Amino acid sequence: MKRLFIASRGNPEQLAQLFRAELPDFEVLTEQPKAGDADVPFIVVGRPLPGVIRAVPGLKLVLSLNAGIEHLLASGEVPDELPIVRLVDEGLALGMAEWVLAQALAWHRNLFLYTELQAKGEWSPKAEKLANERTVTVLGAGALGRPVAEHFVRFGFNTRVWARSKHDVEGAKTFAGKDQLLDAARGADILVNLLPLTAETADVVDAKLLDVLNDGAFFINGARGGHVVDADLIAALDSGKLSGAALDVFRTEPLPAEDPLWRHPKVRLSPHVAAPTHQHMAVKEMAANIRRFENGEPVRNVVDRNLGY
Amino acid sequence: MKRLFIASRGNPEQLAQLFRAELPDFEVLTEQPKAGDADVPFIVVGRPLPGVIRAVPGLKLVLSLNAGIEHLLASGEVPDELPIVRLVDEGLALGMAEWVLAQALAWHRNLFLYTELQAKGEWSPKAEKLANERTVTVLGAGALGRPVAEHFVRFGFNTRVWARSKHDVEGAKTFAGKDQLLDAARGADILVNLLPLTAETADVVDAKLLDVLNDGAFFINGARGGHVVDADLIAALDSGKLSGAALDVFRTEPLPAEDPLWRHPKVRLSPHVAAPTHQHMAVKEMAANIRRFENGEPVRNVVDRNLGY
Repeated sequence: MKRLFIASRGNPEQLAQLFRAELPDFEVLTEQPKAGDADVPFIVVGRPLPGVIRAVPGLKLVLSLNAGIEHLLASGEVPDELPIVRLVDEGLALGMAEWVLAQALAWHRNLFLYTELQAKGEWSPKAEKLANERTVTVLGAGALGRPVAEHFVRFGFNTRVWARSKHDVEGAKTFAGKDQLLDAARGADILVNLLPLTAETADVVDAKLLDVLNDGAFFINGARGGHVVDADLIAALDSGKLSGAALDVFRTEPLPAEDPLWRHPKVRLSPHVAAPTHQHMAVKEMAANIRRFENGEPVRNVVDRNLGY
Repeated sequence: MKRLFIASRGNPEQLAQLFRAELPDFEVLTEQPKAGDADVPFIVVGRPLPGVIRAVPGLKLVLSLNAGIEHLLASGEVPDELPIVRLVDEGLALGMAEWVLAQALAWHRNLFLYTELQAKGEWSPKAEKLANERTVTVLGAGALGRPVAEHFVRFGFNTRVWARSKHDVEGAKTFAGKDQLLDAARGADILVNLLPLTAETADVVDAKLLDVLNDGAFFINGARGGHVVDADLIAALDSGKLSGAALDVFRTEPLPAEDPLWRHPKVRLSPHVAAPTHQHMAVKEMAANIRRFENGEPVRNVVDRNLGY
């Protein structure tokens, strides 16, 4: 019988039940298999403890419960020859699009401002802009960036997309490669980060990038804390270059109590909830990839270790 | 020379300049024409003072600066034989869609909740639902309701649309007529009101309608205060039937300081800014309608006095 090990430290039994329903011909383990046990070709991991992956006998494929897998590469826990699969399920892309548009539209239409005025009992309509008077730059054009950009286009925002390589998104202006990054962001009112975290994209949101945005722009980070130079972000908020930032991800999570982002009046932070894994969809996607591997078909979202995602 | 009178009390000179650009062959007046003056077939009005409309000689068409014209009908200021044109410009529909989706997504993705948790320094992720786990009912399927419903469909919400008569909206379930109103709302998580205010739709959002929603539902009003029985709304908020309401319109505007809606902890109110008139687009639309009238072509958005919109 084929075997699959759920090494997630969250709720392995719940995941195991979902996998048993999707892969009834598999034995689904939640206890660490040891050298000498029968081969276990598949492992499902979140942030595995040291040694867990290497101890599994006959492992052939590592399935991540996350879209971002930079921690797996950095840890050295996955032997070089083992393919890693990122989790890019439909729920992830849907949830991210909802969250980014919620933040962008809430800022664009002054929702938080009017709530402040309400608290003061002030009836004072502001001059409201239409989406077609704003420019949005989305960093990332993959499974997350593309649907987000498409929603922006449908609302009528002047939409730009930047990615490592050229991607076409209907209705959006596209930019590719380091050389075009500042052009993509220049004059934007909203900057959205949905990049994978790699050696190339670490610290990409820095003073140089923020400086070319429109004055009073809004920054939305749904990707990783490691993309942002926090000191530069805070300086841009303090100078008025940025009017606000919606941050869902941080260099350390949970965000330490002493971090100044907690109390910055222009920061709206949320506890890494933009695109939570929806287990049913995640398990369906992972099970389908296991079937592809078994059938010798191309597995989807295999990590390219040179690119880092 | 053809003549047009801008009777708006807001900024008539600014409107007049825009009209002069669109209709260079017109004389555009901002001073009240009197009996005995040359005929002025066209008037542009917001909330005109008594007698202003009837005093214009040779008037043939009344162009409203608003989509809602119930105040013009109720005032009796417009002679029965004079056609009234509602302003349904592209900016209105675009702005409303932005505002409704901003409110709906902000509630759906707990933006205000996380801001409260941030103020307390609490990192506590909530179980986030996807749009396809929520049902939205949009009341109204016209120039405002349809694009809003279409955005909801694109995000994956289970979308329902109710209107006086049958309207098809791709991807949404449609309901028509008084008999199907409660069915349209039953079990909905978000109720959006975008109806015109008429004798039939006044007070439509009452205890009976709110009672069939899902427990903890959210109500969004972008139409008119007269659609809502405020006491029933407040009761539903207090009982927990509703978890919140976003209100942009009120029976009296500005909302009087003593109104309990100002201070209700579950109400987010804004000062009638959901779909402000964008003068450039509004003037283009009105000028195009004046040309149609001149050319004997059908004028768009003429009010049906029997329907009340």
